[in-house]
Amino acid sequence: MTISIPRGTQDILPGEVEKWQLIEKKARELCERFQYKEIRTPIFEHTELFTRSVGDTTDIVQKEMYTFLDRGKRSLTLRPEGTAAVVRSFVEQKMFGQANQPVKLYYMGPMFRYERPQAGRFRQFVQFGVEALGSADPAVDAEVIVLAYSLYQSLGLKKLKLIINSLGDKESRSAHRQALIEHFRPRIDEFCGDCQGRLEKNPMRILDCKKDRDHELMKSAPSILDYLNDESRAYFEKVQKYLTDLQIPFEVDSNLVRGLDYYNHTAFEIMSDAEGFGAITTLCGGGRYNGLVEEIGGPETPGIGFALSIERFIAALHAENIDLPLHEGLDVYLVALGEDAKDYSVGLLHQLRMEGFSAERDYLDRKIKAQFKAADRMNARAVAILGEDELKENKINVKTLATGDQVEYPLDQFIDKFKEAFGK
Amino acid sequence: MTISIPRGTQDILPGEVEKWQLIEKKARELCERFQYKEIRTPIFEHTELFTRSVGDTTDIVQKEMYTFLDRGKRSLTLRPEGTAAVVRSFVEQKMFGQANQPVKLYYMGPMFRYERPQAGRFRQFVQFGVEALGSADPAVDAEVIVLAYSLYQSLGLKKLKLIINSLGDKESRSAHRQALIEHFRPRIDEFCGDCQGRLEKNPMRILDCKKDRDHELMKSAPSILDYLNDESRAYFEKVQKYLTDLQIPFEVDSNLVRGLDYYNHTAFEIMSDAEGFGAITTLCGGGRYNGLVEEIGGPETPGIGFALSIERFIAALHAENIDLPLHEGLDVYLVALGEDAKDYSVGLLHQLRMEGFSAERDYLDRKIKAQFKAADRMNARAVAILGEDELKENKINVKTLATGDQVEYPLDQFIDKFKEAFGK
Repeated sequence: MTISIPRGTQDILPGEVEKWQLIEKKARELCERFQYKEIRTPIFEHTELFTRSVGDTTDIVQKEMYTFLDRGKRSLTLRPEGTAAVVRSFVEQKMFGQANQPVKLYYMGPMFRYERPQAGRFRQFVQFGVEALGSADPAVDAEVIVLAYSLYQSLGLKKLKLIINSLGDKESRSAHRQALIEHFRPRIDEFCGDCQGRLEKNPMRILDCKKDRDHELMKSAPSILDYLNDESRAYFEKVQKYLTDLQIPFEVDSNLVRGLDYYNHTAFEIMSDAEGFGAITTLCGGGRYNGLVEEIGGPETPGIGFALSIERFIAALHAENIDLPLHEGLDVYLVALGEDAKDYSVGLLHQLRMEGFSAERDYLDRKIKAQFKAADRMNARAVAILGEDELKENKINVKTLATGDQVEYPLDQFIDKFKEAFGK
Repeated sequence: MTISIPRGTQDILPGEVEKWQLIEKKARELCERFQYKEIRTPIFEHTELFTRSVGDTTDIVQKEMYTFLDRGKRSLTLRPEGTAAVVRSFVEQKMFGQANQPVKLYYMGPMFRYERPQAGRFRQFVQFGVEALGSADPAVDAEVIVLAYSLYQSLGLKKLKLIINSLGDKESRSAHRQALIEHFRPRIDEFCGDCQGRLEKNPMRILDCKKDRDHELMKSAPSILDYLNDESRAYFEKVQKYLTDLQIPFEVDSNLVRGLDYYNHTAFEIMSDAEGFGAITTLCGGGRYNGLVEEIGGPETPGIGFALSIERFIAALHAENIDLPLHEGLDVYLVALGEDAKDYSVGLLHQLRMEGFSAERDYLDRKIKAQFKAADRMNARAVAILGEDELKENKINVKTLATGDQVEYPLDQFIDKFKEAFGK
């Protein structure tokens, strides 16, 4: 009997994994240039971290978390997103006391949400995200947005759409919140049970409801932008000015709320505009979360970040028919014939690899023809052929597959000669 | 109230994470040369996969797994090791049918075991491992061992000890098994409950018991090496010959069993011999597991692999006082003074980054002196200074921190001039 992979998860195999490697490499390079440093937090956290930070009225916390008791009866949860843990670490490791401020971090790794699997949605998915903690400068908002945008551009994506919104500061949100309650209350019984529960606790969450999105009260709901106080408005204008300076086209959409409770001021999403990309077009989402650090027990600290899914990044590349520059091919395939030559090739192969060449040989006792076929399949630049006779006569033949040229080297000088000819 | 990290796990922070990045980069490079390709399997699997493959008499399965029910009431387990999932994927994705054989794979990622946390032992730890599936050539055993060994050497480790053993084929193991039962049975009541349970089910597991390791019957237990049949003995000799050819020193230790049930033929461990490394000296363990693929529902397929912990790798580097060649430092710090210059610097900073430079600026409205201090702390090569006057007069000053040299460029030619001077 076979055992299958858990539902909603996937194996990423050779042939596909190279895309992931390339995206991750690009992301690391950009983070180095933008001076975001990697942080790695555990795969699971105490459940309370997420109920407190993500928000207990969100879909994530209410329906989608993998929560379990460990053998010591502590409630743990597989992380559904990356920000909460980074902030937990920022507080616990007292990074607010470091000399270099703001603290600029990035993470890359699997996240877990128990959702109905569908195209573009997995129960385990990989996010790359950044967090900048300790500065309330709108230039940081622009930096974070342009980092994500540049990453997509660096791999050739063109059909990108950046949507931004401001959720304002506490005062603005509170005024908006009141307006929302008044707007929805008279007809709240036409909304789903979740929305009814959210009316008093977190009415902005209603705007994010997947079930009620077509209700007429949704379109007519009061816009946060009409409730921004002067300071919040000036902040949002500065962010827009910087994005314009950076030549990043964007649209303002006052309905953009984001599925997490902790955002304020800038919220943004980058979507794919590519034809046939499918229903879920958001590639990247983020925003400012001044107040979250205090929520987790740290000192008052502004923060902003984004997270993007590698799965959707790859889907967007496919939708735009972009061929990634993936390195393929082998430097040298070593064909050994006969027991002694095979034994001898063990050391030779290793020397080639230690010189930096990618090198392979046969491990299935195949005939010479099949070995050459394997070299072809692996797209080898060169094939080195060592038979019993060559071994006795201290020589080895090297064939360049592209040209068919063949040369003979003294076996004991093979590595040096090969380096000269195929040098690295 | 603050929320702490789960017990037995750790955050890996900037300053430390660079070591991880370097080790992983080296491992990926070596795998490329050795032609092992990356595979990524999910963090959790159906529980049955591990009970079936790791073995239900092992400590891992009996005591150490993070097992839980998902919201659909399926029993899932956070992977305690990497081989089972790779083999599950090999079977499910029918890799045994691929043209390129053997299938050579590597993985890198977190594993989970609920153990008592102690120095060098975490509940979440990171393993790098390889698996070669589809060849029973002893040269593959040597290749796998020398890959691990070369990785350690490539980062400067010298105090390495390779231990190998053969667990033989089925026939040999069965003869040895009988001998072990006869050896332990008369005094099995002097052993722990676990061992008593293992006597009939899996007597070799007794040799691996942590509690009874000092019992006199342990030392006098029959050696597997005395029960190897001719074929198994010839196989083991060939592995030793190749290791000798590859100039890898090793010791044969017939007590080496490994904590998983699925091994046969070659088993090996690489330990650190460094002084003060601590009680747990195993850096890497692996072995051959012909039969495991059938166990998971695939066709008869030989296999071999290893897994090594990055945590212990780093501990070994510390124990040998090895300084890793970690890249540090910033290409340019942009000092902007005054509102307009700060606004202007947003675009300038981005251009520098898009040209490949690592570049940073102030986001806390600090005075010029504090900005220079920050540039120093970040080990910047150059500081570019832009004030209101410079902005009006279309110029910018660039100071090389190592020499103190300062030059003035026209602001609108800054990027080109900077590239010439500090080129990438």
